[in-house]
Amino acid sequence: MAVYTHLGAEDLAALIGCYDVGDLLSAKGIAEGVSNSNWLVETTGGRFILTMYERRIDPADLPFFLGLLDHLSARGCPVPATIHDRAGASFRLVGGKAAALIEFLPGVSVDRPTEGQARNVGAVLAQMHLASAGFALERANALGPRTSAEVLTGCGAEALAAIDPALSAAIAFAEQVAARWPHDLPRAVVHSDLFPDNVLMLGEEVTGLIDFYFACNDMMAYDLAVTHAAWSFSEGGRAHHAAVGAALVAGYESVRPLTSAERAALPLLAQGACLRFVSSRAQDWLESPAGALVTRKDPMDFMRRLAFYREHGEPVFAA
Amino acid sequence: MAVYTHLGAEDLAALIGCYDVGDLLSAKGIAEGVSNSNWLVETTGGRFILTMYERRIDPADLPFFLGLLDHLSARGCPVPATIHDRAGASFRLVGGKAAALIEFLPGVSVDRPTEGQARNVGAVLAQMHLASAGFALERANALGPRTSAEVLTGCGAEALAAIDPALSAAIAFAEQVAARWPHDLPRAVVHSDLFPDNVLMLGEEVTGLIDFYFACNDMMAYDLAVTHAAWSFSEGGRAHHAAVGAALVAGYESVRPLTSAERAALPLLAQGACLRFVSSRAQDWLESPAGALVTRKDPMDFMRRLAFYREHGEPVFAA
Repeated sequence: MAVYTHLGAEDLAALIGCYDVGDLLSAKGIAEGVSNSNWLVETTGGRFILTMYERRIDPADLPFFLGLLDHLSARGCPVPATIHDRAGASFRLVGGKAAALIEFLPGVSVDRPTEGQARNVGAVLAQMHLASAGFALERANALGPRTSAEVLTGCGAEALAAIDPALSAAIAFAEQVAARWPHDLPRAVVHSDLFPDNVLMLGEEVTGLIDFYFACNDMMAYDLAVTHAAWSFSEGGRAHHAAVGAALVAGYESVRPLTSAERAALPLLAQGACLRFVSSRAQDWLESPAGALVTRKDPMDFMRRLAFYREHGEPVFAA
Repeated sequence: MAVYTHLGAEDLAALIGCYDVGDLLSAKGIAEGVSNSNWLVETTGGRFILTMYERRIDPADLPFFLGLLDHLSARGCPVPATIHDRAGASFRLVGGKAAALIEFLPGVSVDRPTEGQARNVGAVLAQMHLASAGFALERANALGPRTSAEVLTGCGAEALAAIDPALSAAIAFAEQVAARWPHDLPRAVVHSDLFPDNVLMLGEEVTGLIDFYFACNDMMAYDLAVTHAAWSFSEGGRAHHAAVGAALVAGYESVRPLTSAERAALPLLAQGACLRFVSSRAQDWLESPAGALVTRKDPMDFMRRLAFYREHGEPVFAA
């Protein structure tokens, strides 16, 4: 959530000059993205997001991420297309770092989704899944349930308990979920991080899905489960908004009906989704000094959601 | 250089609805300003900067800062006008914090000013000084040479030397400058922080002066001295670009010729300008933990400029 690299007018103008987008008029560093630097750039040809990839993003993954945007955008999904440079490249190296110019999309991210908003997000998620068919590249999900279990085991029960006494139970939960994880549900390219932050909306309309830097090939129902966990709870995961969650699933099914196997798996997939965020947040928490000015995300937000799905997952996802 | 407050779509739409600027289309938190949160907001009526005032800005100063923008903008200066809400107020309270909506101006900030750019910045600075005549409010400069001396004394010679062995000499320099400080030069409202960061340009044209949160009533020649120190040195203050500095002063004089007393005072005023930044940076350095993720600005950048002005200030500013 910061701009890690300084680019002055001279550097920006030189970079923008590599694209057929007109002359630079404005550029503002924006506080978006977890580990990239981003600028909202205006030229005589339009508005764009310039992203410079910092730590955490492997440049070898960029053809997948940026090609996916082009693939989905060409098929009518509300995702930003990549602007290619004059030589046709989807990203360039600037001072040793990869940088890409992508389309700017209007819209703002909601904090408290309504049923109507959740329904439309579900529909667009299904649309994205279907539209990803035929995309030539593949990327494995590096953050599956086995990884969650390993990350939590690596943190250690004692360290987890020091964050919160209830957190050390996550290790056993993750082992159980990983052992029961399905492998035969329908797959596609999934976003796998579709929090409200990563959806631009105008009113109830979805104007953009953004931040595809966790996208990978995985089970479509898992992506729906992630989105359910991200959209249908109050802050901190303290209360479940049943109507919002139901609207999300109904919206998804309005475009792509779930198979009975997918529906039956949702309670477990939702637990796996929660554990993916519990594990990465716990790891980040333990790796960030307490005094640092980084906002640490509380892993308990998703332990509460996990507890909800363990107790109520079956009725919530019943057809 | 961060966004300290979270505003979701719902909060933003409610706030924007208090202004006659149309409907919210987009809002991006931008990494600008030292101690405010800023958003680049687009509505059906145009683009704006939404600023939320965090620590360091006294809300009692907002009528001065925001009224000054309106005063200067109405007189043709390239500064953003304040957008007043439907009730006519220049700022509102949002969750206990003051927030203002100001005009968006195009342009980007240069890293390596050319002579042509410096000349135009000088001319616009003089234009701003003249246009400030008649502005009804007053604000004292809280960061004059006496304050610099007190801040440096407060840091202590030992702590300063721990940052850099050459830094403790700043205490005596500041005392000397404060003792010789002129008080009878022509005054106006001055920007007093016109670094390249705070000037938007398109090519050689100045499209915006921004960030007036150090503006105050003081000697106009002091503002020119601050701008000279900020614009005519290479990074770190290691080399003086004489032609850029001369172009800045010539540009200033193309609009408002300096009096002989002002010209004679410039070498001392420039030393005072350097000490203002040496002192605040030294204080920030000592107050910021070394491991914090805040970028500390090196006070030595302006100790080098100070040394330059002590040695070469007379010939550099000779008519």
